[in-house]
Amino acid sequence: MRVIFNEGLKAVADDLDHMVRNVRDAIHGAGAALLSQDLDAAQKVIDDDAETDALSTSIVDQCVELLARQNPVATDLRVVVSTMRLAITFERMGDLARHIAEAARRTYPDSPLPANAVDLFRQMQDFLDVTADRLVTMLADRDTHTADEIIRDDDRLDDLHRRTLQLAQSDDFPGTNQQLINVVLIGRFMERLGDHSVSAARRVVFIVSGFDPSKEPARDEGTDID
Amino acid sequence: MRVIFNEGLKAVADDLDHMVRNVRDAIHGAGAALLSQDLDAAQKVIDDDAETDALSTSIVDQCVELLARQNPVATDLRVVVSTMRLAITFERMGDLARHIAEAARRTYPDSPLPANAVDLFRQMQDFLDVTADRLVTMLADRDTHTADEIIRDDDRLDDLHRRTLQLAQSDDFPGTNQQLINVVLIGRFMERLGDHSVSAARRVVFIVSGFDPSKEPARDEGTDID
Repeated sequence: MRVIFNEGLKAVADDLDHMVRNVRDAIHGAGAALLSQDLDAAQKVIDDDAETDALSTSIVDQCVELLARQNPVATDLRVVVSTMRLAITFERMGDLARHIAEAARRTYPDSPLPANAVDLFRQMQDFLDVTADRLVTMLADRDTHTADEIIRDDDRLDDLHRRTLQLAQSDDFPGTNQQLINVVLIGRFMERLGDHSVSAARRVVFIVSGFDPSKEPARDEGTDID
Repeated sequence: MRVIFNEGLKAVADDLDHMVRNVRDAIHGAGAALLSQDLDAAQKVIDDDAETDALSTSIVDQCVELLARQNPVATDLRVVVSTMRLAITFERMGDLARHIAEAARRTYPDSPLPANAVDLFRQMQDFLDVTADRLVTMLADRDTHTADEIIRDDDRLDDLHRRTLQLAQSDDFPGTNQQLINVVLIGRFMERLGDHSVSAARRVVFIVSGFDPSKEPARDEGTDID
């Protein structure tokens, strides 16, 4: 029984790994679409999201199967439940990257952003590119050091996001209303990518800590959730 | 064993019921805050969200306990897993209602919205007030007729949401940039409340249908998810 359980869990872990690599690629691709008007990159993010969604559904189904057939308890049970929640979080991250790619595709060949917002969004994207790579490392190695870095650094993204809103608020905002809407919505999608990354990192810390209640993610996604 | 499982499941179902009533109250309260500048209502939505979050955590914990101790299979197992997912969805809905209440509190005693956007947002709120009441009925009675109504009517909210974006895009938008940001973000929070309601309704249909695969929610929240 134990061997079967471990084999089943290994298969799910491989799929979760695959999924987080897809999410990493989607985040990088959304950045290329947003900041370099790369239409192929945008289309690829949009098209590939279906596979990420299918992986999420498959992971949840496999977890339900494991629960039914193997009756895991204690740590094993919590690993299965946490795996389901990670898959759901990564599915949302794929959707957010897709929303950014769609916004870039809508205004192609123009940028969806006014020129003087680009630098701020490039800083946000650089941050998310690093976070996306960290998510892959964290999952592959169950690496809490990397998870802690994700959690620790998120304030920086929140600060950049606040600055995009300040720019949007200023009475001499140098773009059209449509560009202002893009700044607000794309900024929010990027901030949410950061929130979901923190949520995933907290969950990995909780798994690796052996479910130390003091490490339990009390809420799913920090203070600013939807 | 069966009696214990049913008792345990009954306790979780009662908590989920409690949770959806909180979410209904939060949606109604957010509307009073947004459209009537009701500061007490705003504060109550913000304060009460902690209880909704605690209920979500408690429901997930109880479900994990049921999985560990009772090893449910087949339909029982899927009910437990679906209950966890419904709790997570309702937690997010509480957060979204809180975001709206916070936006209203920030601009009190002024409205966060420009005067000529109020009618559209009132229509969205009327829609969400009905949806919130339907969620309570749907959960209390496992009522797929009400669930189907929630799923069927969501297009109307999407249409109203599109109209808020059209208003925001117009070059003679009659408000400040801050009001434009509020129109965009509050509109999105309200649209997301609708999406999550549809997600919850689909899950209830899936439970009541005895997990007919043709009724399975293929994706968690329709086409526009984060």
